[in-house]
Amino acid sequence: MAGILCACSAPKQTGPVQAQWGQAVYPGVWKTSVGNPDKLNLLNAVEATPKAEILNTKSQQEFPINPDEIKISLRNGKTVVRLPLDKEEQIFGLGLNFKTVDQRGRILRLHMDHYSNNDNGRTHAPVPFFISSKGYGLLINSARYIDAYVGTGVRVDSKNPPEARDRNTDSNWSANPYSDNLEFVIPEEGVELILFKGDNMLDVVSRFNLYCGSGFIPPKWGLGFWHRTPTRYTDENVAQEAADFANKNFPLDVIGLEPGWHSKAYPCSFDWDPNRFPDPDQFIQKMNEQNIEVNLWCNPYISPESSMYEQILPYCGTHTVWCGVVPDYTLPEARKVFQQHIKKAQLDKGISGYKIDEVDGNDSWLWPDAAEFPSGTEADQMRSIYGNLVMKTVDKEYRDINKRTYGLVRAVNAGGVSFPYVIYNDNYSHRDFITGIINSSFIGVMWTPEVRGSGSGEEWLRRMQTTCFGPLAQLNAWADGTKPWSYPEVYKQCQEVAFLRMQLLPYFYSAFADYYLQGEPPFRAMNLVEGFDGKTQKIKTKLDATENPYETVQIREVKDQYMVGDNLLVAPLFAGEMERSVVLPKGKWYDFYTGELVGENEIIQVKGSLDKIPLFVRDGGIIPMIPAARQTKAWIEGQPLEIRVYGTADGSFTLYDDDGESYNYEKGAYSIKKLNVQKGETSVEDVKSDGGWSYKDISWKFMTPEK
Amino acid sequence: MAGILCACSAPKQTGPVQAQWGQAVYPGVWKTSVGNPDKLNLLNAVEATPKAEILNTKSQQEFPINPDEIKISLRNGKTVVRLPLDKEEQIFGLGLNFKTVDQRGRILRLHMDHYSNNDNGRTHAPVPFFISSKGYGLLINSARYIDAYVGTGVRVDSKNPPEARDRNTDSNWSANPYSDNLEFVIPEEGVELILFKGDNMLDVVSRFNLYCGSGFIPPKWGLGFWHRTPTRYTDENVAQEAADFANKNFPLDVIGLEPGWHSKAYPCSFDWDPNRFPDPDQFIQKMNEQNIEVNLWCNPYISPESSMYEQILPYCGTHTVWCGVVPDYTLPEARKVFQQHIKKAQLDKGISGYKIDEVDGNDSWLWPDAAEFPSGTEADQMRSIYGNLVMKTVDKEYRDINKRTYGLVRAVNAGGVSFPYVIYNDNYSHRDFITGIINSSFIGVMWTPEVRGSGSGEEWLRRMQTTCFGPLAQLNAWADGTKPWSYPEVYKQCQEVAFLRMQLLPYFYSAFADYYLQGEPPFRAMNLVEGFDGKTQKIKTKLDATENPYETVQIREVKDQYMVGDNLLVAPLFAGEMERSVVLPKGKWYDFYTGELVGENEIIQVKGSLDKIPLFVRDGGIIPMIPAARQTKAWIEGQPLEIRVYGTADGSFTLYDDDGESYNYEKGAYSIKKLNVQKGETSVEDVKSDGGWSYKDISWKFMTPEK
Repeated sequence: MAGILCACSAPKQTGPVQAQWGQAVYPGVWKTSVGNPDKLNLLNAVEATPKAEILNTKSQQEFPINPDEIKISLRNGKTVVRLPLDKEEQIFGLGLNFKTVDQRGRILRLHMDHYSNNDNGRTHAPVPFFISSKGYGLLINSARYIDAYVGTGVRVDSKNPPEARDRNTDSNWSANPYSDNLEFVIPEEGVELILFKGDNMLDVVSRFNLYCGSGFIPPKWGLGFWHRTPTRYTDENVAQEAADFANKNFPLDVIGLEPGWHSKAYPCSFDWDPNRFPDPDQFIQKMNEQNIEVNLWCNPYISPESSMYEQILPYCGTHTVWCGVVPDYTLPEARKVFQQHIKKAQLDKGISGYKIDEVDGNDSWLWPDAAEFPSGTEADQMRSIYGNLVMKTVDKEYRDINKRTYGLVRAVNAGGVSFPYVIYNDNYSHRDFITGIINSSFIGVMWTPEVRGSGSGEEWLRRMQTTCFGPLAQLNAWADGTKPWSYPEVYKQCQEVAFLRMQLLPYFYSAFADYYLQGEPPFRAMNLVEGFDGKTQKIKTKLDATENPYETVQIREVKDQYMVGDNLLVAPLFAGEMERSVVLPKGKWYDFYTGELVGENEIIQVKGSLDKIPLFVRDGGIIPMIPAARQTKAWIEGQPLEIRVYGTADGSFTLYDDDGESYNYEKGAYSIKKLNVQKGETSVEDVKSDGGWSYKDISWKFMTPEK
Repeated sequence: MAGILCACSAPKQTGPVQAQWGQAVYPGVWKTSVGNPDKLNLLNAVEATPKAEILNTKSQQEFPINPDEIKISLRNGKTVVRLPLDKEEQIFGLGLNFKTVDQRGRILRLHMDHYSNNDNGRTHAPVPFFISSKGYGLLINSARYIDAYVGTGVRVDSKNPPEARDRNTDSNWSANPYSDNLEFVIPEEGVELILFKGDNMLDVVSRFNLYCGSGFIPPKWGLGFWHRTPTRYTDENVAQEAADFANKNFPLDVIGLEPGWHSKAYPCSFDWDPNRFPDPDQFIQKMNEQNIEVNLWCNPYISPESSMYEQILPYCGTHTVWCGVVPDYTLPEARKVFQQHIKKAQLDKGISGYKIDEVDGNDSWLWPDAAEFPSGTEADQMRSIYGNLVMKTVDKEYRDINKRTYGLVRAVNAGGVSFPYVIYNDNYSHRDFITGIINSSFIGVMWTPEVRGSGSGEEWLRRMQTTCFGPLAQLNAWADGTKPWSYPEVYKQCQEVAFLRMQLLPYFYSAFADYYLQGEPPFRAMNLVEGFDGKTQKIKTKLDATENPYETVQIREVKDQYMVGDNLLVAPLFAGEMERSVVLPKGKWYDFYTGELVGENEIIQVKGSLDKIPLFVRDGGIIPMIPAARQTKAWIEGQPLEIRVYGTADGSFTLYDDDGESYNYEKGAYSIKKLNVQKGETSVEDVKSDGGWSYKDISWKFMTPEK
């Protein structure tokens, strides 16, 4: 077959273009398009639909920048977008970074990939969305790899240029002079841009999330404790593990099976292994009887020995991954084959969800950019959206049976915010895990700091404490078979923090409700808290002929503490560190455990103990809690509610509840009560009572001792 | 100004195309073009011209592959090229890599940049040329960033596919199954390809080099010892340094001045600093009187305070580098301003050449890909060729005064082979330096393992020994002011190896002559030696949940020894290692110092000494030497020649000489004598005697003791 020839050999549109922003499509949301963008983009690839009814309740906003200062030009198949930067402006987002928060001064190539210890744009969620500290954000709705120059390029025509300095004599010479612009190169002959303005950065993020479909509420069991068993465990091994958790009295709501459940893995068959799992129905039933949900690891590359292979083959790309075919999930036919298979083989048997591995990278085993797909979707586009496509494909099946799923995935992009998945990876730095949680909150994704192994009991405990304050608390023992009690010297403390999470579930659950109802991330960066001073410091470094020939400036920023919901500040301790500093947002803050005042408008030094993860609550902060239970079943069946009140300021909390397992909440079947404290007087306001209220009675507890 | 609009919105040419290779343009050289390639490419950007008269003397060759197996397709502005790979085939080249030699199994994005410790394609010479162990090579003549999948992608339609394995049970499962193809993605709507076939890999490289313009012969002084003085040295400091070298009796032919000679640096003025160098003419004259040439560091970004700033400004790009403007050296106007300035300010004063810094990267201070240049050359293209352009711009000035230059540069690409420059960088791993020498020989560039500082006297000596067996022997003290005698405990040995280099200059010089006359790299990989077994070993690794979750295969290959010319094998020792293994090509090999047989068809273990760098000579190998002298002037003025003969086999050596300073050799003004040994009988054959013969008399020395 010969190639389709185009009669026209003239260059495509090229030169500067003026974007027409027009009227806001929703309050504080503007959309424009220049040139001839690709038909496929990040949002339409998964039919992401704005939550109009909520967006329309948001405040009206002014267009944040002078439109003439947004320079766009088309160049020989590429689109270049430039925006102005103020001197002190900070830029957040632009992918799931693990080492830096403020991206100003960085160059990123937003490229879906596994994260390899460098914030260069190659990561599990290279979302082309940024938020400016000036209170606006921009989504570049393109599935191509985008180059972002975040305040690095200095132009000859700069309005406010840095001065040239003589490195021979001027100690203020810098290898990276100040830049007053932000430039993006998009390898597409046009692009769709969506600009967001809010009352503050959190409001910008929430409008971005709502525009992309808004967040999700996980099933209640999903917020319990997860344990992934070693890859070659049999049904009996797994049953024994579950029994051990019960005997040891450690929380457990979900057991995750790793590759061994497949008859063939890497690539995957999606058929049960007849030896390790001879009777999956009975196995799953037995687990469910113990109130344990089962989650299955997979990668979506289909083994030649899978029973669905022949059916799905016609809808796959030119290249294989580990010799498995790569379904083109943009095609309904491919989705149908896959969906029918997993429904029959897993969903109908009671499987609660999946861990979708290997949809991120790395380059050396995924398809190359040279690959082709039957839909005509190009390889780089497919790379950018593959995780989203697989989530969407699975999601539909669970919605069809009106059962919430919750799982893990290695790749998410813009448009994935409404899929109930958290990202994980193979990087295992405890500190990076925290920075990951922080950055996930800017871009509409979730990140879990799971626990695997540890060098010491102390490290094990610190990681346990962190995962219990993440979106999905998980011990992943796939390779080394660790258990919560693998470090007996800290088992008691591990138990304590796991049970503390179980007590806090009403608080966590309401935080997720805000994600769905308001687009506000439940786990979020301090930078999204009003009154938090997150200025990045630049520190001069010493010249070293070989190690530091350019005296590169070092950046210091707050990247080791975060918020859960509006009230709870989490400041994890790391192995070997019994003390740390915590930067408090403005106002008074209180110790979660004692209710004591810890500081006001200051950076505090916290002396930690092995037993506890440092937690702080804002003045007037309300934290609803339930009695400790090993499984979420107790919570669903109904528990008394203890409402903790911190500090002396007035406060209120929006407590959300629903059936905890179906998608009926999306049809309005949920309840909301407003918990108020005014001048020491408490009240409970019924806002909505459309089902799923699981709290028997309410008691208040004022944590802060009278002065 | 509005953008030029194109009436046509139809897609560009897309789909598979069949390249027409036609007749060889030179023996073993085929050229083809598909689609609509960019007007600018790597070779025409510097008007690289094939050495037709030499190429035409090469043997005729068959087209090495079935043309139908070279698959090319055009896709929406990109060109994808695919070639077949045999099971054991090795792929060399594809840029100046520092850690790996065989590139098979790697994914590279060929992108001009500083090297940052990862062979990922971002390097100082991302030359899009590869050589196959099957004895052919391919140049992708594109100035765009090219993605290379070197035997990684496995296609569904593979002719001999790997079998899918079950990772659960099959210990032979691999994260990287065997791939039978090589794929390139070129972001251009067509491309020019040039394919080379030779009698062996060295012959392929030589045809590639000859096609790109062939190598150069440095001035004789360039092969002496170089010393770069601390950046803020004054003329008096430098004079003192020169005197110290004389007093200490250490070789010195060139002194390099670092940024301090400029009145302003980073960006550069190219004007002399009135305080540190009040009288450059006198300073240079004084140096020249001591037979010392002066080389000047620079980066080509022009300071607003340079006396050429106003003139060059109109011919610069939209972005600055350290607030200096970036001349568009594709424009004759820009070249002219720069050339006139350096001629008047430096060349006319006797400056011998430049060290051209910062033309490689890194991204965070060079212009972004969003930049525009007055010529219309796109930012990525400019990035790929900038080093070549600056070398060419300077080169012309030296040719105009018929004076050879020799210098250093941080970026070279295809087409730069004929420019007399060696590459250096800020990576300072001694082992990587050797691998750099090896890889430079595949792609028509030179790499120097300069010496800076060291952690110990031993390390200092080992680095000194290596630099003395490189293309440009240099101590770079710009930042830490080290001298050859900074480690007194090893000064004697440093002196010895520096003088040994001076003795070997006739051999080195003839090796460079082969570079110019035959395209054969003077410093070369063992893989280019016939009878060398360079198979890469793959070693299985142990699963580790966090460090090695995919049991990635480890590669072991010979990357710490190399050849100088045809006869001399260099096997450097590294600090802390008094012993090493050396892989000998087939045949007998002899110790350079003693003439003793060291091995035959084997891998030998060499016990080193602190005093010497291990050197070996092939059977029948001839090494012409002169008496040790501190400067090359003695050599030029005429020296007796000692011809060392190793082993017992017959041998011959082509000894080249010329005036050592002008470009007259390019017009045929040089002499060649063939030195022969047959059955122990020696003879000297006059091949060419057109001037520049500087050897007084010839004596033979049979190094290998009779048995």
